Amino acid sequence: MPLAYLLRDSLRPPSSLVERKGPTAPRSGKGTYVAERKIAQPLQRLTSFTEDMQARGLRPASRVLDQDLLPAPLELAQALAVAPGAELVRIRRLRLADGQPLAMEASHLPHALCPGLRDVDLSAHSLYEVLRTRYGIRLGSAKQTIEASEPVAEERELLQMPEHVPVLRLHRLTCGDDGTLVEFTRAVYRGDRYQLHVELR
Amino acid sequence: MPLAYLLRDSLRPPSSLVERKGPTAPRSGKGTYVAERKIAQPLQRLTSFTEDMQARGLRPASRVLDQDLLPAPLELAQALAVAPGAELVRIRRLRLADGQPLAMEASHLPHALCPGLRDVDLSAHSLYEVLRTRYGIRLGSAKQTIEASEPVAEERELLQMPEHVPVLRLHRLTCGDDGTLVEFTRAVYRGDRYQLHVELR
Repeated sequence: MPLAYLLRDSLRPPSSLVERKGPTAPRSGKGTYVAERKIAQPLQRLTSFTEDMQARGLRPASRVLDQDLLPAPLELAQALAVAPGAELVRIRRLRLADGQPLAMEASHLPHALCPGLRDVDLSAHSLYEVLRTRYGIRLGSAKQTIEASEPVAEERELLQMPEHVPVLRLHRLTCGDDGTLVEFTRAVYRGDRYQLHVELR
Repeated sequence: MPLAYLLRDSLRPPSSLVERKGPTAPRSGKGTYVAERKIAQPLQRLTSFTEDMQARGLRPASRVLDQDLLPAPLELAQALAVAPGAELVRIRRLRLADGQPLAMEASHLPHALCPGLRDVDLSAHSLYEVLRTRYGIRLGSAKQTIEASEPVAEERELLQMPEHVPVLRLHRLTCGDDGTLVEFTRAVYRGDRYQLHVELR
């Protein structure tokens, strides 16, 4: 079906089909193939990175860059409705898909909601799974903003990005199913490897 | 409410609140103000550019760049499920918000669905309004992809973009409420002026 072909098939970006001239991405193959397609994420369901990657047959991995406590700066305190200076757990992770750097995520959670989270091994487990199984926190909804942006130097380096490739910058505020503000995340995805899908009505 | 403040208030981009250091966008004022804030679009409702801008108190305007007929290239024929070479109406518009260039949109519709559309004045009317009132076409749903990208030279020039500012590139396939494939649109929004919002569950 053309519709599915155009907008659903993550193996070939729509842009290569209908907009840009130039060589077409290979439809099968090995090696550089992962780097040449874009990974499409369905937008409206609240899923973890781990679930997203597994759903499309890619092997997710995380490298934890930081996992520490910090006093909430004013902006994060406002976002999470905690007192300025309240303890937050900060988890910064490099996200990989089939071994290739795809995104950087910085998650911030009120420590009072998840004491001890700083010491949990998150390179092997989904944060959302840990929240559910260890803290009984089930996520209910999130508000997300999306913008196109230039990466900063650290992002470009960690994501091993070529020059002049932009990023998709996502900010997400996630609530538990009881409405508690649980997590504020800033994520940066390689623009040349990542694509969002959304259905509108 | 912090949540609303952070993710809802289009007068200050979230990125300036919680991520980047630097001068804060002014909260009131004239002149350059429009150019310094980002315009946030709620994602999940299918609205026209005209409706979007009006909903947030901005004056929408369009400059029609092309409005012509062309034989459907293979990719657009596949997208719209018409025969290759079938007549399409193509409408390319520069979109402005309060007089500032914000986006370029190229819409493609099967001419058989909307004969005479080539000659309708679309600088003053919403395409979606014309489809409804003149052709009885009510739009039902759309599938959209979103990616971050570098603008090409023509886009940068028409949108009057500074160097090294990326764009949000949106592709949208829109169906009528009876499931007919009505429109395939490629849109390019200035990354420094535009932001999408989405709610996840």
